[in-house]
Amino acid sequence: MIALKSLTIALDVMGGDKGPLITIPAAVLAVKNIPELHLILCGDVNIINAELSKHQCAQHPQLTIFPTTEIVAMDDKPIVALRNKKNSSMRKSLDLVHENKAQACVSAGNTGALFSMAHFVLKTLVGVERPALISSLPTHDENKHVFMLDLGANVFCDSNVLYQFAVMGSVMAEQVDGIKSPRIALLNMGEEEMKGSDHIKQTAAKLAQNSDINYIGFVEGNDIFTNKADVIVCDGFVGNVALKTCEGVARLVYQKMNTVLSRNLFTRIVGRLLSSTLKKLFKPLNPDQYNGASLIGLRGIVVKSHGDASSKAFYMAILEAIKEIERQVPEKIKDKLENGFACGRK
Amino acid sequence: MIALKSLTIALDVMGGDKGPLITIPAAVLAVKNIPELHLILCGDVNIINAELSKHQCAQHPQLTIFPTTEIVAMDDKPIVALRNKKNSSMRKSLDLVHENKAQACVSAGNTGALFSMAHFVLKTLVGVERPALISSLPTHDENKHVFMLDLGANVFCDSNVLYQFAVMGSVMAEQVDGIKSPRIALLNMGEEEMKGSDHIKQTAAKLAQNSDINYIGFVEGNDIFTNKADVIVCDGFVGNVALKTCEGVARLVYQKMNTVLSRNLFTRIVGRLLSSTLKKLFKPLNPDQYNGASLIGLRGIVVKSHGDASSKAFYMAILEAIKEIERQVPEKIKDKLENGFACGRK
Repeated sequence: MIALKSLTIALDVMGGDKGPLITIPAAVLAVKNIPELHLILCGDVNIINAELSKHQCAQHPQLTIFPTTEIVAMDDKPIVALRNKKNSSMRKSLDLVHENKAQACVSAGNTGALFSMAHFVLKTLVGVERPALISSLPTHDENKHVFMLDLGANVFCDSNVLYQFAVMGSVMAEQVDGIKSPRIALLNMGEEEMKGSDHIKQTAAKLAQNSDINYIGFVEGNDIFTNKADVIVCDGFVGNVALKTCEGVARLVYQKMNTVLSRNLFTRIVGRLLSSTLKKLFKPLNPDQYNGASLIGLRGIVVKSHGDASSKAFYMAILEAIKEIERQVPEKIKDKLENGFACGRK
Repeated sequence: MIALKSLTIALDVMGGDKGPLITIPAAVLAVKNIPELHLILCGDVNIINAELSKHQCAQHPQLTIFPTTEIVAMDDKPIVALRNKKNSSMRKSLDLVHENKAQACVSAGNTGALFSMAHFVLKTLVGVERPALISSLPTHDENKHVFMLDLGANVFCDSNVLYQFAVMGSVMAEQVDGIKSPRIALLNMGEEEMKGSDHIKQTAAKLAQNSDINYIGFVEGNDIFTNKADVIVCDGFVGNVALKTCEGVARLVYQKMNTVLSRNLFTRIVGRLLSSTLKKLFKPLNPDQYNGASLIGLRGIVVKSHGDASSKAFYMAILEAIKEIERQVPEKIKDKLENGFACGRK
């Protein structure tokens, strides 16, 4: 996968709510900032050329167009997209990773379809039953964030799958953040051993048995942000609700904050002065900044950007992909699974 | 249940992390503010008397002590507490409701134990399989909140149970908030019909068939606060994680806000001036203020206060109990279930 000397990433240009309107400006920004980066733009050649011309990049040496004729709609059923959209921008960008013509793929498209296609095209690593969506969230400690998975790739996960997520999350924290023996926790509705569903208790038992994993026990939703753990593991339904709730609360507080700061002349002046600081404060809780979620457990790197991502957000997702290429995350997960981590069903 | 002319509530004085240290001051505050209120204090008679003396209320006419010898610990297994702690303050305060000697019970104790005991002692209303924990959360609209259930009473809920939660939530919003035809939504990992688990899709189908319920579809975590729905329904695991995540984010933002406001002389002055406004802003997202969760679906009123509730929070829970007594919530749910709401298994 890392055969290529240069840094090459395939972009699903047509994916996301706004497609090329946000993916092309992000691509242009990326190649301008990173000289060694080469991007393969998968999508409608006419639309891409029109957008590139707007940015005076019609003939940019770091950009190659890979023409595709189909688009995976945001409401396409995954199975339908998988079967019928083999020439879509999403599918082709994944094919390019599979064929070692790109080291990673970035898409802001239909999550379910991307998940199914990536799973089918790239296949999972040996010992991994299901890939997972992983991303990082801020904590009370300015300099530390917490990795959380699964954020919505799998509706339900049994104890073997959750165990494998813990292993993958551990590698992510170790490789991407350089944390030695990352603290792994399971998200639960209580910290006491007796709490939660049977499959969570079974996962806890499996993790406790494995001395290679620094399992610290259960954490509750309010502990996601207290830097108690480096990696928090849960099924995709719970993870998705937690992530979206986090975004929702941040938006609520930001809106109420602005209402407070627009009350009178004094507060308006204060608001002006605090404006940039407040934006900076809320950004990490805003999908726009923190939305580069990675699909891990596959034989290739796939970064999922938010459906309503801005150009900046999509650019952040490209940077995330570069980081994972440099740290060789899939290879490191593979090594971990082969050395001492028995993740298969017993 | 509403046989008594006066307003009588039984308190589990020993429940919660701090027990009498927070429940007694709350009880004293309540009877001082509400002349018609009578409280039955269930717990250790010596400790209660000692605490009451501290507040010069040793002989208060609105307070009666019901001596109990056992305490349900916060880590007692529900089944053990149910079997072996028949003379606990928690159990006795529920017995008093069952015997019509009190119209409601308030406890800050072990949620699982309270749930099991309340279920066993009070029994569920006809047509209700499982009671649910319900509470309200703030929205972007200053004057509106959203009811959410289940917040942790049930780990897993099938489609019949979720359907019944929707009916109970609808009654709660109608009776307590006076909303005509409340908007009912199911919490899911996406708004599209195909999203989510089978039991969520089955619940959606059942709700869509019932013209007596104003079912508006799926909402995601970030929509909890956007006033899209009056009632949001989910299983106890997901609801608990969402609620705790909400608290966690609020604490995170509040802490970061204070860091920002203590940077220099100017920000410190601004911080002082905004201090009360900020506290007011974060309060609704703070369990201390919003933690009076009710256990509904039972033949009696049970209000659960946060385990680490402050006196003020426990006082708020007492006020919530009074509101439900006045609005006769259990009777209204019973009526609704008997009139046109088929909640049984088909």
